[in-house]
Amino acid sequence: MGPVVDCEDALARVLPPEALLTEIEDKRPYECDGLSAYQQVPRMVALPETRGQVEAVVKICANHEVPVIARGAGTGLSGGALPRADGCLMSLAKFNRIVEIDAENRIAVVEPGVRNIAISEAAAAYGLYYAPDPSSQIACSIGGNVAENAGGVHCLKYGLTVHNVLRVEILTAQGDWLTLGAAALDSPGYDLLAILNGSEGMLGIIMQITVKLLPRPPVARVLLGAFDKVQAAADTVAGVIAAGIIPAGLEMMDRLAIQAAEDYCQAGYPRDANAILLCELDGTPDEVDTQLRAVEDIFRRHGCSEARVSTTEEERLRFWMGRKAAFPAMGRIAPDYYCMDGTIPRRNLGVVLGRIAELSQEYGLAVANVFHAGDGNLHPLIAYDANEDGQLEAAERLGAEILELCVEVGGTITGEHGVGVEKLEQMCLQFSAPELAVFHAIKDAFDPAGLLNPGKAIPTLHRCAEFGAMHVRGGKLPHPELERF
Amino acid sequence: MGPVVDCEDALARVLPPEALLTEIEDKRPYECDGLSAYQQVPRMVALPETRGQVEAVVKICANHEVPVIARGAGTGLSGGALPRADGCLMSLAKFNRIVEIDAENRIAVVEPGVRNIAISEAAAAYGLYYAPDPSSQIACSIGGNVAENAGGVHCLKYGLTVHNVLRVEILTAQGDWLTLGAAALDSPGYDLLAILNGSEGMLGIIMQITVKLLPRPPVARVLLGAFDKVQAAADTVAGVIAAGIIPAGLEMMDRLAIQAAEDYCQAGYPRDANAILLCELDGTPDEVDTQLRAVEDIFRRHGCSEARVSTTEEERLRFWMGRKAAFPAMGRIAPDYYCMDGTIPRRNLGVVLGRIAELSQEYGLAVANVFHAGDGNLHPLIAYDANEDGQLEAAERLGAEILELCVEVGGTITGEHGVGVEKLEQMCLQFSAPELAVFHAIKDAFDPAGLLNPGKAIPTLHRCAEFGAMHVRGGKLPHPELERF
Repeated sequence: MGPVVDCEDALARVLPPEALLTEIEDKRPYECDGLSAYQQVPRMVALPETRGQVEAVVKICANHEVPVIARGAGTGLSGGALPRADGCLMSLAKFNRIVEIDAENRIAVVEPGVRNIAISEAAAAYGLYYAPDPSSQIACSIGGNVAENAGGVHCLKYGLTVHNVLRVEILTAQGDWLTLGAAALDSPGYDLLAILNGSEGMLGIIMQITVKLLPRPPVARVLLGAFDKVQAAADTVAGVIAAGIIPAGLEMMDRLAIQAAEDYCQAGYPRDANAILLCELDGTPDEVDTQLRAVEDIFRRHGCSEARVSTTEEERLRFWMGRKAAFPAMGRIAPDYYCMDGTIPRRNLGVVLGRIAELSQEYGLAVANVFHAGDGNLHPLIAYDANEDGQLEAAERLGAEILELCVEVGGTITGEHGVGVEKLEQMCLQFSAPELAVFHAIKDAFDPAGLLNPGKAIPTLHRCAEFGAMHVRGGKLPHPELERF
Repeated sequence: MGPVVDCEDALARVLPPEALLTEIEDKRPYECDGLSAYQQVPRMVALPETRGQVEAVVKICANHEVPVIARGAGTGLSGGALPRADGCLMSLAKFNRIVEIDAENRIAVVEPGVRNIAISEAAAAYGLYYAPDPSSQIACSIGGNVAENAGGVHCLKYGLTVHNVLRVEILTAQGDWLTLGAAALDSPGYDLLAILNGSEGMLGIIMQITVKLLPRPPVARVLLGAFDKVQAAADTVAGVIAAGIIPAGLEMMDRLAIQAAEDYCQAGYPRDANAILLCELDGTPDEVDTQLRAVEDIFRRHGCSEARVSTTEEERLRFWMGRKAAFPAMGRIAPDYYCMDGTIPRRNLGVVLGRIAELSQEYGLAVANVFHAGDGNLHPLIAYDANEDGQLEAAERLGAEILELCVEVGGTITGEHGVGVEKLEQMCLQFSAPELAVFHAIKDAFDPAGLLNPGKAIPTLHRCAEFGAMHVRGGKLPHPELERF
C-alpha cells in the first residue's frame, strides 16, 4: 500500500463520505478553473465544512507529502486552481457564511466561499458595499479574489482587492493558524497581509477575510464617448487622468468589441465608431456634475465625435451592459476566445494597441480590445477555433507576444487575473534570477515542504533558462521602435 | 589582526577618506536617531556617494560578517536606525537627487536621501504633490519613510507610505539589485514591494523610490470644534466616519495638549475646552462646502460648544500650527517627553483615552494626547524629567501599558513610527509564536546571514518567552472591563 492510498484512508477517517471524492466521475467537475485550456483530474477532492476538517486535511496531506490545491468558485482565468494528478483539490465552497457586517467600523468579516456580490448585497441594508467588482462577481468567491488579487471596473478609483482587505486568517501548510493584518490602520512587522493578496494559494489556505466596506456614492453617471481613431481615445484617457480626475471607471472598447456587444445585447453603442470610452463618475450630485462637464470637455478636445451622458440609473446600467457582456459576446465572432491580461503605463496605450492590431494581422486571428483603460489594464480577446488545426497554439503564441510587449514598454504581465499556470514563462521576462530567487525563498518561508499549490505563479530558474533558450531573438529587442519607452 | 580590522581596511580601499568615519568624535553624531533614549556609537560610519560604493560596502561587510545599518535623516522615533557596536552605520544622505518628475504619469523617481517635503516642492510646478506628510517632513528622508511606512496628518484620506509608493529598487545583503513593484497598477508574483514598506532596513538597502504624485486639491478648509467632554469628541469622530465622509485629516488634542500649544504658539485654540477636533476637508469648492456643512452638523449634534471654519489659507495654516507644534510645545510642561504610537479601532477611542487618564494618575506622570483621531492612531506624549530618579523608567512602563491596552482592544502597537528597538517586547503581545516564526523566515528569505539591521522590529521567540515570564498577571486580562472589545 503506497503512501497516497494511506492518505486517502486517513482522509476518509476525518471527512464524511460525501466530502471526499475519489471516483473519476465525481472528480471531473474540478478538473479545471476558468482557464479551461488546461485540465487535470485531481487524485482526490476534499469538500470540508468545518475548520477542524480543513486543518485535518492539511495535516494529513502534509504527513503524506500530498500537495493541496485550495479552490473557491473556480472562476479564475489563469489556471491558479488547476489540480494536480498527485494532489488533493480542496474546495472551500461550503465556507460561505457572512460572519459579521460591522456598519459602524465599515467592515465585513466573511468566509472564503462567500461570493463577491453577496458581500455588497448583505451590506446594502446599511448603505454600504464592497468595492472590487470583477466581471465574474456574481459567481467568484472572495477567497479566490484575495488569492488572485482581483480587480474590476471600479479599481481605478477604489483599488484592487489588496487595497480593500484589512485582515486575513490563514491555515499554513504545517497546520498553524495565522492572522495577518489588523482592523486598524497599520500593523507592525512585515506586511504579510499584502503578500497573501495575489499569492495564488501558495502561502496558506485563506479561511477568513475582513474587508473594508464603502458608503454607496449618492450618484453615479456614465459618459459614453465615440471616437474615430483609437489613438484619440487613448490620448483622451491620458487627458482625463492628467486633469486630476479619478473616474470610478474608465473603460475602452474597440470596433470589434463594440460590434460584438451590439449584436449580442443592443446596448446602444455607436456601431461605426472605432473606439468608445465609458467614463463613470460618482459622488455627490454637485461633484458629479462638475466632473462630467470637465470630462466631456476633454473628450471633445480630443476629437470625440459623439458624447452621451446617462440621465437615469436605468440608462447607466444599459451603458455598462454591453461592456459587461463583451466576453460572452465574443462567442458570436469565433467558437473560442483567449482572454489576455496585461498592464501598461497609460501613455503607451496608443502605440501598444497599434502593435496588437499588427500582430492580429500577422497571426490571422481577430483580436477585440475591451479593457480598463484608466489604469492601463488591457484585456485583448483573441478569437480562434480550437477545432481548426494549430489555431489554439497560434492564439497562445500571439497572447505571449502581447504580454512580452507589455513588459517591454514598462508594464506587467498581469493586471488582475494572476499568473497561475498561464503566464509562468512570461514571469521569466518580468523578473531577474535574483528576484525569482527571493520569490522562492518567500514560498519556503511559509511552506518549506512546498505542498501548497506547487508549480503555480513562480517559475523555477531552470524553467526560465529553458524558456530563455527558446526565445533568443538575436540578442535584440523584438520591437526596436519601442526601445525608448 | 581580527576580522573587524580587516573590514575597515577593505572599506578604506573603496571609500575616500572623508567617507569612512572611525574616530569616536566623528562617529558620535550617528549614535542615535529620534529615539534618543537609546544610544550606541557604531564601529564605523560609511558615507557612500555612488551606487558602486554602496554595493562595495555591503559586499565587504557581508564578507566580514559585519552588520550594516542603513540610515536616512535619522528622525525615526522607534530606534530603527540605532547603530550596533559591531556594525557599520551607512548613511544614505548623499543620495539626495530627484531623478525625475513625470507629470504626465504623475510619478516621481527619487533617491533615498531626498527629504519628504522636497518631493512636493519639486512637483509643485506641475500642480502636484506627494501626499504622506509626517510631522518631521522638513527633515525626514523618503528612504526612511519607506523603511518605517511613515504616515502623517493626511493619511486618513491619502494612505500611508505603502499606499503611495509604486516601485522600490533595493540592494540585498548579498549585493543583488532588485526592483520591487512597477509603475503599473498591479505586479505579478508576491507583493515584495508591500513587504519592503515598513521592513525597517532589515530586508534590503533602499536605493531608489518611485512615488505617486497627486494633484493639489483646489480648496482645503479646516473646521475647528471645541468639546467639553473627551468622550463627546471621540463619538464625533465615529460620527463623521459613519456618515461616509473621509476628511483629508481629522485630529484630536486634549486639554493638556491644547494649553501647551497655546502657550507655545498662540494658534487661537479655546483654552478651556477639554478636547478639540481639527477636521480638514479638501476637493472642489462645492464639494468642500457640502461636506463642511455636514461635518459641522455632526459636530453640533455631538455637543460641540464652539465651531470655527477657516476662511482663508492663512487661517487654515494657523489652525494647524498648534497641532504641528504640539511636540515641541511639550517642552514647556516637562524637560523630557516620550512620544507613544499605537492604533486602536475608532469606536474604542473614548474608553482608551479614559484609561490613559487613569494610568497617568497612577504613575503620577502627565500625558498629553494629540493624535490622528480619524484613523485611531494615538500619540500619547508622556511628560517626565530624566534627571529625577526613576522617571524615565516609569515613563517607559507607562508607555508599555498604553501599548498593551491598544492590543487588548483589537489595535496594534504602532500606527506610523515602526517597532525599531522600542517596541520589541510589545511585538510578543501582538503576535503568536507561529506568526513571529514566519516573520523570521521572511527575514531569512532576503538576508540569510542576518546582517541587515539585525535585532530590530522582530523579537526572537526566546526574548518573547522571557518577556512573557516577566508579565504574568495571574493569567487574567489586566482590564476585564475591556474584554468584550
